[in-house]
Amino acid sequence: MQLSDIHSPKDLKRLPVEELPALCQQLRSALLQKLSACGGHIGPNLGFLEATVALHYVFDSPTDKFVFDVSHQSYVHKMLTGRMQAFLDPAHYADVSGYTNPAESEHDSFNVGHTSTSVSLAVGLARGRDLLGKSGNVVAVIGDGSLSGGEAFEGLDNAAMLGSNFIVVVNDNEMSIPENSGGMYRNLKQLRETDGKAGCNFFKAMGLDYMYEDRGNDVKALVDIFRKVKDTDHPVAVHIHTQKGMGYAPAMQNKEYFHWGFPFDLQTGACKLKFEGENYQDLTGAWLMDQIKRRPEVVAITAAMPMTFGFTPAMRAEAGRQFVDVGIAEEHAVAMASGIAKAGGRPVFALNSTFLQRTYDQMIQDLSLNGNPAVILVFYNGVYSLNDVTHTGFQDIPMLSNIPGLTYLSPVTKEEYFAMLDWSLSQNAGPVAIRVPERVVSSGSPDTTDYNRTNSYEVKRRGTRVALLGLGVFQAQAAETLRLLEQQGVQGTLINPKFVSGVDTVLLESLKADHELVVTLEDGIMEGGFGAKIAQFYGDSSMKVLCRGLRKDFYDRFKTDELLRQMRLTPGQLAADVMAVLNR
Amino acid sequence: MQLSDIHSPKDLKRLPVEELPALCQQLRSALLQKLSACGGHIGPNLGFLEATVALHYVFDSPTDKFVFDVSHQSYVHKMLTGRMQAFLDPAHYADVSGYTNPAESEHDSFNVGHTSTSVSLAVGLARGRDLLGKSGNVVAVIGDGSLSGGEAFEGLDNAAMLGSNFIVVVNDNEMSIPENSGGMYRNLKQLRETDGKAGCNFFKAMGLDYMYEDRGNDVKALVDIFRKVKDTDHPVAVHIHTQKGMGYAPAMQNKEYFHWGFPFDLQTGACKLKFEGENYQDLTGAWLMDQIKRRPEVVAITAAMPMTFGFTPAMRAEAGRQFVDVGIAEEHAVAMASGIAKAGGRPVFALNSTFLQRTYDQMIQDLSLNGNPAVILVFYNGVYSLNDVTHTGFQDIPMLSNIPGLTYLSPVTKEEYFAMLDWSLSQNAGPVAIRVPERVVSSGSPDTTDYNRTNSYEVKRRGTRVALLGLGVFQAQAAETLRLLEQQGVQGTLINPKFVSGVDTVLLESLKADHELVVTLEDGIMEGGFGAKIAQFYGDSSMKVLCRGLRKDFYDRFKTDELLRQMRLTPGQLAADVMAVLNR
Repeated sequence: MQLSDIHSPKDLKRLPVEELPALCQQLRSALLQKLSACGGHIGPNLGFLEATVALHYVFDSPTDKFVFDVSHQSYVHKMLTGRMQAFLDPAHYADVSGYTNPAESEHDSFNVGHTSTSVSLAVGLARGRDLLGKSGNVVAVIGDGSLSGGEAFEGLDNAAMLGSNFIVVVNDNEMSIPENSGGMYRNLKQLRETDGKAGCNFFKAMGLDYMYEDRGNDVKALVDIFRKVKDTDHPVAVHIHTQKGMGYAPAMQNKEYFHWGFPFDLQTGACKLKFEGENYQDLTGAWLMDQIKRRPEVVAITAAMPMTFGFTPAMRAEAGRQFVDVGIAEEHAVAMASGIAKAGGRPVFALNSTFLQRTYDQMIQDLSLNGNPAVILVFYNGVYSLNDVTHTGFQDIPMLSNIPGLTYLSPVTKEEYFAMLDWSLSQNAGPVAIRVPERVVSSGSPDTTDYNRTNSYEVKRRGTRVALLGLGVFQAQAAETLRLLEQQGVQGTLINPKFVSGVDTVLLESLKADHELVVTLEDGIMEGGFGAKIAQFYGDSSMKVLCRGLRKDFYDRFKTDELLRQMRLTPGQLAADVMAVLNR
Repeated sequence: MQLSDIHSPKDLKRLPVEELPALCQQLRSALLQKLSACGGHIGPNLGFLEATVALHYVFDSPTDKFVFDVSHQSYVHKMLTGRMQAFLDPAHYADVSGYTNPAESEHDSFNVGHTSTSVSLAVGLARGRDLLGKSGNVVAVIGDGSLSGGEAFEGLDNAAMLGSNFIVVVNDNEMSIPENSGGMYRNLKQLRETDGKAGCNFFKAMGLDYMYEDRGNDVKALVDIFRKVKDTDHPVAVHIHTQKGMGYAPAMQNKEYFHWGFPFDLQTGACKLKFEGENYQDLTGAWLMDQIKRRPEVVAITAAMPMTFGFTPAMRAEAGRQFVDVGIAEEHAVAMASGIAKAGGRPVFALNSTFLQRTYDQMIQDLSLNGNPAVILVFYNGVYSLNDVTHTGFQDIPMLSNIPGLTYLSPVTKEEYFAMLDWSLSQNAGPVAIRVPERVVSSGSPDTTDYNRTNSYEVKRRGTRVALLGLGVFQAQAAETLRLLEQQGVQGTLINPKFVSGVDTVLLESLKADHELVVTLEDGIMEGGFGAKIAQFYGDSSMKVLCRGLRKDFYDRFKTDELLRQMRLTPGQLAADVMAVLNR
């Protein structure tokens, strides 16, 4: 069978089971071809390939529902459900996203991109099915790495209470993004080593029925086990042992590196892209390693993504107990950081903006209410960063800047960033979060700001009529806008606010004397953000305030330049809009 | 020994172990006396009384650290750590809060009030201890009910990775607030029934060492088991089986009712307070029960707090599978609700504003991004509701109103509330959250608003010069302020915004014609809230905007009237401030 002949799972089902291994080879070749050209989640999709084929062979999607955790392993599912062309034809590579997406296919139930949600979402589908008196299997797929997230645990605990059909396929490849971290993983190892027969069994302890299949990349064995659980009348966990990166030697040898990767040379596995210049991942890692060596109380914390701050395996080993990978468990990371700081340690927890969202309550209750001086580094934020709708970093300003007791800083240059980092590790006033820019910009001169002076904005240039407050990366937009305004005879004021979480009331008050307009620029959702605070401050005065940022919305696979234009955030648009207000 | 002679745990340690049972009797009597007079967490403190005495007898606080989950069971801990007077002398009853509080005592490490955080916070203390080369035991106390929260699971999974002293005391009283719900509880039952010897063991599956003590209210047995684990060099779970409400018959008979209660008659257990008139708990429960009977797809969801929306045990039984208690698992509840709605069900999840915080990421990713029409009811919000700093409902407006795709509604009257409820269950546009007021106010006439007209504010009275936008309960303040302004010759406009999450641009635009000032009133943290949106909207116009609400801060045990005055939210202050702006 030609892959291009597979238009739906029905086509797959026509094959005798004996032909499935050959089909898997074809799928793997095609998948690797696209992955090497486009990059993406390499190891997860190679590892779950046979399982995906077996699932679609045995079950009847879309009547039966699959919910993929994170859904970064759903490429083969897409190939089998009417989206093959997006994997075979380079002209159509961009037709599909890297995650499940109901807008693409009736075989996708949810937009998913965060970990540990599949069981809960699927429990919902099962409960909905039962309420409406419908039938069909509901299958949640979850990797061993995602199991450490609290939401997954809540889901499993609740799945066991369903008195009806429910299947959890646990895709155990013995890896998170890096190695797994957590006591539960000892039990998974025990289960693998006893062919699922160990008496102490995490899944049974959660109240689930349980089956084990060690041959997780043997499509025929998988067909057999899925047939056994199909149409089950109760919740059952099917624990399968897979190989991350299966069938591609470089990915099997370096599993962490090939979890997600840029385009690579298919022969060697070498990355095709060349990165030049500095990046904040490496710079942060080096700074943190230096702190760790000099101060035993400093500890670097990650939730399964140490490369977010450039912490290579060698650095992790060198840091010893001053490096903690909590697994995919951001809530725990924040609460633990609060405890470490309370005990006199100096925790630095770095994570993606989008995953920070999971810690809102912990940031408020466990950390900020307790005033413990933990440091949170917010990476991958804003319009120059990740652009999948599930991974955009647009909410961190509304999220963090309105939490009492928390200082949120946004540096423009690397000198500011490191001055903020140094200060955050030296102060005891409370928790500090820092919004790490996507691109490294240097001022060339050290930042001598006293960050103990909370909410002191920096005046880069004092002018009149209009003041531009450019937060973080948008300081560049502000400066360029000011230059354009000068050409029109307006000598404005340029301000680097630095503090996202508060208002420099003295400075803002002083602007009233000779300014008519204040413009705020922020690289995230504008509602509830930084500009809103400025607008509130000036609300009952005659100062006009123009807030610019992203309108509250979901943005999927946007092009940065287009998005900036849509939001009227280019210097040309900004200068025109400022002149319109000034001339009104 | 007189209780008043216990000034610190040192005094307790002077007693021979044989005298501890008698001391427990004294403590129980005193505790009941205060509880009956003041109300509070009755069952949890009675049940954990012996364990608290044994912990302080065996360990050496504050060198050894106790972290109590929720810390609602910490009353006896407070009695033994220098705060006895607050339990013996009615004049000092109010000296202490109902939760641990570092400002009260060095024996309290954290301000805690939410569930499932103790293990993670304590893991932080243990890691801090190890980093700094210090010694001492770290003991996390957690109830079986709190175990179902994802953060607790993340904590246990990580606790097992500590290669050093760590003790988790699992206080298993076979109850959450209502009955436990979750597959894990079958394993706890198995462990209780086998005296801890069952081969399948949740705690061991999590990688923890494990001990069991069935006599959880036998202080001498507890002293023995705590002595066995004191100074352990590795993480161990001590599972003790206690009786919620121990030693007080009414509390042992009705465990759910006596989890937290108002002042009660010590002889009979009868509540001393009389409640008259309607409340939104009962009204919501009755409405929901009616919906459930009429529509099989409607399902009421709670995270272990069914009385939040008046769902009595009888109603839960009657609702059958149309009622789901997920246990303390708010994240799961939101994701599950999204799944149910996707499958065609009609989920209604009701919870306290403060606990909603734990669902920020799920509200964004699992629910709003997917646009599924689940309904979220936000109870116990604002200045007229709970006033412990850990339980205030002040963040829900900044939290929910800046999430794309989510409609957040704030009714003034019960007629509006039920019109919103009816609409929310009939529409398919996406998720809807409703901010349930603390007090029932009736307009006496049905609300005929078409809520499909998103962001349409209601003009209650059209005037000129100043428009007051009073959100929810603050509509009353707005109306009264307007009355005061009339006395000064200003005939203003009164608006009921109803939609917290959006701006009625047409109406606001129209106000520019004959208004100089818009005043926003919101019952929560003002930064990032409703008024901020209005201020942003009018920012570049000459309309002045006065935003009023709570300044971003933590407020502990506030008095509502004082707080309103501090925030200049009384009608008199508002009228004066409006006149000051108008006359400027």
